[in-house]
Amino acid sequence: MAPPRLLVLGHAAHDLVYRVPAIPARPVKVVATSMTECGGGMAANAAVAIARLGGRVTYWGRVADDALGARILGDLAAEGVDVAQARRVPGCRSPVSSILVDDHGDRLICSFTDPSLDPDPGWMPIDRVRDYDAVLADVRWPAGSERLLRAARDAGRPALLDADVAPAATIARLVDCATHVLFSEPGLQAACPATPAPEALRRCVRAHHRIVGVTLGAEGFLWIEDGAVRREAAPRVAAVDTLAAGDVWHGAFALALAEGHDTVAAARFANRAAALKCLRPGGRSGAPTRAELDAWQG
Amino acid sequence: MAPPRLLVLGHAAHDLVYRVPAIPARPVKVVATSMTECGGGMAANAAVAIARLGGRVTYWGRVADDALGARILGDLAAEGVDVAQARRVPGCRSPVSSILVDDHGDRLICSFTDPSLDPDPGWMPIDRVRDYDAVLADVRWPAGSERLLRAARDAGRPALLDADVAPAATIARLVDCATHVLFSEPGLQAACPATPAPEALRRCVRAHHRIVGVTLGAEGFLWIEDGAVRREAAPRVAAVDTLAAGDVWHGAFALALAEGHDTVAAARFANRAAALKCLRPGGRSGAPTRAELDAWQG
Repeated sequence: MAPPRLLVLGHAAHDLVYRVPAIPARPVKVVATSMTECGGGMAANAAVAIARLGGRVTYWGRVADDALGARILGDLAAEGVDVAQARRVPGCRSPVSSILVDDHGDRLICSFTDPSLDPDPGWMPIDRVRDYDAVLADVRWPAGSERLLRAARDAGRPALLDADVAPAATIARLVDCATHVLFSEPGLQAACPATPAPEALRRCVRAHHRIVGVTLGAEGFLWIEDGAVRREAAPRVAAVDTLAAGDVWHGAFALALAEGHDTVAAARFANRAAALKCLRPGGRSGAPTRAELDAWQG
Repeated sequence: MAPPRLLVLGHAAHDLVYRVPAIPARPVKVVATSMTECGGGMAANAAVAIARLGGRVTYWGRVADDALGARILGDLAAEGVDVAQARRVPGCRSPVSSILVDDHGDRLICSFTDPSLDPDPGWMPIDRVRDYDAVLADVRWPAGSERLLRAARDAGRPALLDADVAPAATIARLVDCATHVLFSEPGLQAACPATPAPEALRRCVRAHHRIVGVTLGAEGFLWIEDGAVRREAAPRVAAVDTLAAGDVWHGAFALALAEGHDTVAAARFANRAAALKCLRPGGRSGAPTRAELDAWQG
């Protein structure tokens, strides 16, 4: 059986990752013990995870027509991600993030996306959505995500939203387009402030949703499906680097759904892939291959 | 009268400066509203401040023999800083910092200096120290600072130490070399934990010290001179960007001493220069010229 085909849309960036003893809680100076540069961005990281786990994956999104943009797409291509349809926008700067990772594996991410990156998604070859078994989009390019998620849903394909922190109106619009809404904890808090997770998820459910859930890091995945609250616990690991773990989760979950698994099995697969990533430093470069994940005893 | 000549040694870096609504107190994701790249580093910023305030200034220090190193030195040269004697080290990476600045002007700085940057200060043309009216060194390259501060002191020149956070043994060694010790608040706390500032300063005083002081941001400068505790208040300003304000203070203070002013007058001059810088965004690019400072009513 041929591997499923997935389409991932959204944030691709170049990351500067600083290792620090502790992430400061106040605005001070901190001296990094090391620094590495690598590809990053939520959608791009998820695409790399899918490729490593054996899926065929295409990236749609925008970078600038600059040296950094070439590097961002080159890093994705080197991982086996099809970037032939990604857009290079002239006259602006490519997305860049600076990230602090501490010795507990926690990470502080500061991302910049040039506001002059043309938001118009009209260039996307949207009819090709039927070529894919599932699509995954994030919140960093709302116009693009909205167009893709709507088209995928209309075509009867799973339309997964990585619902991270964004303005409330943006989240609300994208939630309305997706079939599978996958909040981060901060994303869910932003969408439904001061509300316990199960109740917050309930408020976000629309009739066309297959599932609405939230990734809880070490606590696994909590979701509502057919009106019932479910939870799949994550393997317990001593994390050394949680950077990109959520993105790996989303990629693995999308791949498992596209392979035909049910939500429980997909959540278990994604929890394991993200946990194994957390055992390895280097952000998305720690994303596991399928063989590594199958062999892992965790 | 010819302007005085100053020699500044230490940290020169390339800064990525992200503007954020608030600096997070926890390890989360934050989306920057803008990002600018510019020259940075404590010593380099102080050198730029001196040049803008009318001093003749030479920079000694190390960058890598890479594109970023060329840019760092080029940015300094464009400000009128003499970088002809700076060292380019092959086979390593130039210093880089990522900085978050929030809407209150507070800043979080994360700096990386490649440990493979050769620490040997043997290349420095140390006999030329007699050509300068004062020297200023920071804590980022201890071997270089120690050699320069000792030589300046032996030559009867003011040997100023920007005593920011560093390992206790490093600080202790450098404090022993300088004639003027200028702590930051975090630097003084690191050197003498849990001790009120006047008592902490007292403990650091050595017989050869002219002054030992601490910059207190909006609270001005507190120092010990001839056994007495003194304080010079700073102008009250609504800061929009404190990035590089401490470095501007050190540069201005060193210049004023080299011009022959006493400590009170030098502290007043430095307090004013740093306060004016805080009114302007863009890190060291907001450092004032002499004409701007003279004209400022603050």
